[in-house]
Amino acid sequence: MRTDPDMLWYGWGDPAARTELPESAQQLLASALRLPERILPPPAEEDVKLPATELPVDFAAVVGEAYVLTDPHSRLLHSAGKSTIDLLRLRSGEVREAPDAVLLPADHDEILTLLRICTENNITVVPFGGGTSVVGGVQPSGQRPVVALDLRRLDKLVSVDEISQTAVLQAGLRAPAAERLLGEHGFTLGHLPQSFEYATIGGFAATRSSGQASNRYGSFADLVTGLRVATPSGPLELGRAPGSAAGPDLLQLLLGSEGVFGVITEVTVRIRPIPPKLLDETWTFADFASGVAAVRALAQADAAPAVARLSDEAETGINRALGGQDQTGGCVLVTGYEGTAAEVAADRTRAAEILAAHGGSDLAGASDWRAHRFRAPYLRDALLGVGALAETLETAATYSALPGLYEGVRTAVAAALGGPAVVMCHVSHLYPTGASLYFTVVCGQSDDPVSQWQRAKTAAGDAIVAAGGTITHHHAVGADHRPWMAAEVGDLGVAILRAVKDRLDPAGILNPGKLIP
Amino acid sequence: MRTDPDMLWYGWGDPAARTELPESAQQLLASALRLPERILPPPAEEDVKLPATELPVDFAAVVGEAYVLTDPHSRLLHSAGKSTIDLLRLRSGEVREAPDAVLLPADHDEILTLLRICTENNITVVPFGGGTSVVGGVQPSGQRPVVALDLRRLDKLVSVDEISQTAVLQAGLRAPAAERLLGEHGFTLGHLPQSFEYATIGGFAATRSSGQASNRYGSFADLVTGLRVATPSGPLELGRAPGSAAGPDLLQLLLGSEGVFGVITEVTVRIRPIPPKLLDETWTFADFASGVAAVRALAQADAAPAVARLSDEAETGINRALGGQDQTGGCVLVTGYEGTAAEVAADRTRAAEILAAHGGSDLAGASDWRAHRFRAPYLRDALLGVGALAETLETAATYSALPGLYEGVRTAVAAALGGPAVVMCHVSHLYPTGASLYFTVVCGQSDDPVSQWQRAKTAAGDAIVAAGGTITHHHAVGADHRPWMAAEVGDLGVAILRAVKDRLDPAGILNPGKLIP
Repeated sequence: MRTDPDMLWYGWGDPAARTELPESAQQLLASALRLPERILPPPAEEDVKLPATELPVDFAAVVGEAYVLTDPHSRLLHSAGKSTIDLLRLRSGEVREAPDAVLLPADHDEILTLLRICTENNITVVPFGGGTSVVGGVQPSGQRPVVALDLRRLDKLVSVDEISQTAVLQAGLRAPAAERLLGEHGFTLGHLPQSFEYATIGGFAATRSSGQASNRYGSFADLVTGLRVATPSGPLELGRAPGSAAGPDLLQLLLGSEGVFGVITEVTVRIRPIPPKLLDETWTFADFASGVAAVRALAQADAAPAVARLSDEAETGINRALGGQDQTGGCVLVTGYEGTAAEVAADRTRAAEILAAHGGSDLAGASDWRAHRFRAPYLRDALLGVGALAETLETAATYSALPGLYEGVRTAVAAALGGPAVVMCHVSHLYPTGASLYFTVVCGQSDDPVSQWQRAKTAAGDAIVAAGGTITHHHAVGADHRPWMAAEVGDLGVAILRAVKDRLDPAGILNPGKLIP
Repeated sequence: MRTDPDMLWYGWGDPAARTELPESAQQLLASALRLPERILPPPAEEDVKLPATELPVDFAAVVGEAYVLTDPHSRLLHSAGKSTIDLLRLRSGEVREAPDAVLLPADHDEILTLLRICTENNITVVPFGGGTSVVGGVQPSGQRPVVALDLRRLDKLVSVDEISQTAVLQAGLRAPAAERLLGEHGFTLGHLPQSFEYATIGGFAATRSSGQASNRYGSFADLVTGLRVATPSGPLELGRAPGSAAGPDLLQLLLGSEGVFGVITEVTVRIRPIPPKLLDETWTFADFASGVAAVRALAQADAAPAVARLSDEAETGINRALGGQDQTGGCVLVTGYEGTAAEVAADRTRAAEILAAHGGSDLAGASDWRAHRFRAPYLRDALLGVGALAETLETAATYSALPGLYEGVRTAVAAALGGPAVVMCHVSHLYPTGASLYFTVVCGQSDDPVSQWQRAKTAAGDAIVAAGGTITHHHAVGADHRPWMAAEVGDLGVAILRAVKDRLDPAGILNPGKLIP
């Protein structure tokens, strides 16, 4: 069972790894944005009030006394995810919903039993992995009593098949532990999203996560070859072959199901030998449009580096300011290659030809991107602490739709926020037919920053739909994107999800208020 | 509307392209197998008896008089697919089921109207594309009256997006016409299964087809970025972005749905520039196991040629005999590279290193595989005509499971057939974690060849399941593989399919007897 420290209850990550904004950044913020004059510090944890626990069932008989947690600390840590709105609410001492208990089942069979008991007793169940959702995916909404089903005890590497290059991982395994266990066999998943340090294998599968090197490794859904799922209607075991025409691909129906159909307990994944060579480079382009044309050419030539992050002018400028670099204009593209030395050399040569042909200039130096790849959520905490509002949102579309999507979201968010705001963006996760856009927004907090961001988020979602993008490329739906699901898959698409839900979870106990409108 | 000739009613393809077995092959067959002494020729078409048409609804009001076909020729051509059992039955003059009419709707909206009318009047609807199913996917089973919904008038290239490299194709477009239309823009789908000359875009999507160059282009499901579907419950439009975490991937629920959920009317696909260079080569390996190790190494190094077909010893020997070559033992691997000249050269160098390192010998000559790539179904007709039973079946599994799957299927089929039989196999469709096995079986026809093959097919299916393979890698489920669907996806998986079916087609009019047990 996991022994690493709990995350900070009102912020991201290891409390010992908290960061403060450098003085220069604070001055930049204060001059560029309208920050509030006074910021209240978060309350002491013992002053946060939770509703009293109601627990009509003796879960200890299933999981054992030690694995039914009802202490306020455990309940608080399972009361929300890590979106900015979650953190703003927690910082203000507001806990709207908390689970009555946190259950820590040992295995798939105990989860099947728990789901049966909760169905019989009409107890809401919220599956909980790393708790890193930024879309309201783990908040205990719905009817009480409600339990958080924390999968941390399902933390084993079940098996490695070195011939087929697959592994079976339990769902509660955190990504760093999974990498460590696979690394003992010489393998890696290669799946490193920004949430890497805390996110779990089951969470990756339940949310269709994408990692920072997705151009090489694919999204997590691409890595999955099998799933074991515990549902209120019994177990599901899916995935008999690497390719199949045996009807619809039901794996793809459970991937992205966000705990509303069942609890993913085991995931079979493709693994790869650990690449012996990593190479990071930095390129610049005159402007965002020419950079987008270049990364499109990479993707359509099947020549995209494992990592390719193209920042727009705004993000390029901010990154340079934070790094103390000169402002020289244009846009920066960070590239990262992985593989054997020969592969990296060949891939780099091919990509460099394409980038140069599209007007790119090689800055002849590694970026420091890799060193900071998991730091952004800590930076957000620091920004919230000085009265800034900072949040990200993301989408994807075809290359034809990308320019309209980019302008549409920027314009809508800026207009909704009203006052001075920085809206910056990067392209990443390249496909032959399109790419994702990842926006970061920073402005000063108003008197009601939760409503302030909700207005901006609503405007962004509407702009995404209007421009033909998907409401989420890799953050998932949760509660926050649910209003746009009908636009995403149509009313009949929603009806399909509802029909599957009714079949697998007829009592509707699983993660209500998420995914399905 | 399609003007190319109808297929032969009791066989494959263009009647003018029929073939006879060479004398040498006939002698080989007669000496190796137990062929019947006398073969009855197929009956004259006019002697085939069809049940009288019952048509309680005036479909002409929807599609126009000219597009409601009730003539015996049209009904006969829509009475079966092209499995060996289909052809044996037709050759014996047996037509167990025929549609009461063949409807040729003009577009998506007419199909929605037809589905509504058929739901109201309890008329069974069998969607019909190229009619190339080899798994009983288009036979008009179920309650009468029954209509075949032939999509041949939906034969347009709707749009090409050269920036995003996507195209929208109507579902009834045959593959050669699709390639011709895309070729005018410089693009290709790259999807060439053995049924290429007759199969349709909608059929590829409905059956999760795989093409012969799938290592480069992916399966058809990998090419699809959007679907438009007409269902009895209304329209579905799916696919807003190249990648999305907006819940389960519903595209993957409609891909492979084989006409039981709705009628696919439009497909958005990834397209690629036509590769300027093709290079075919032939390699040999000492035995099948070392060849499998070599192609596995190719796939796991992301170095698989577009085409890679490794024949086992039996298939290698037969191919050499048919080509008049010496028998030198071992196994032949056919490789085919596609791309720019530089890409082909680089890919070939990389693959050749890996193949040589695994004991492969380059035969330094192109194979004639490409010239004959679509001829096998004609050869089957010739074999049936001289009293041989010839059929194929296919599966896929992880590399670890492949040896057991290979032996299990060969043993089971040979045992079920009893008498002398040739069971040969090739590996194709390589994945990093596994590959498909494609078996061809030839023996003499017994007095009841339909039952003879059904016994072999049952034994093969049971062996596939026992060895951990999928019941079908690219032929789809249809009626023939339906008995193994519960083994494939579990009882709860079947229940999910049933729930979706009930939501989209509550009256159960669509393609009954297929896919869902």
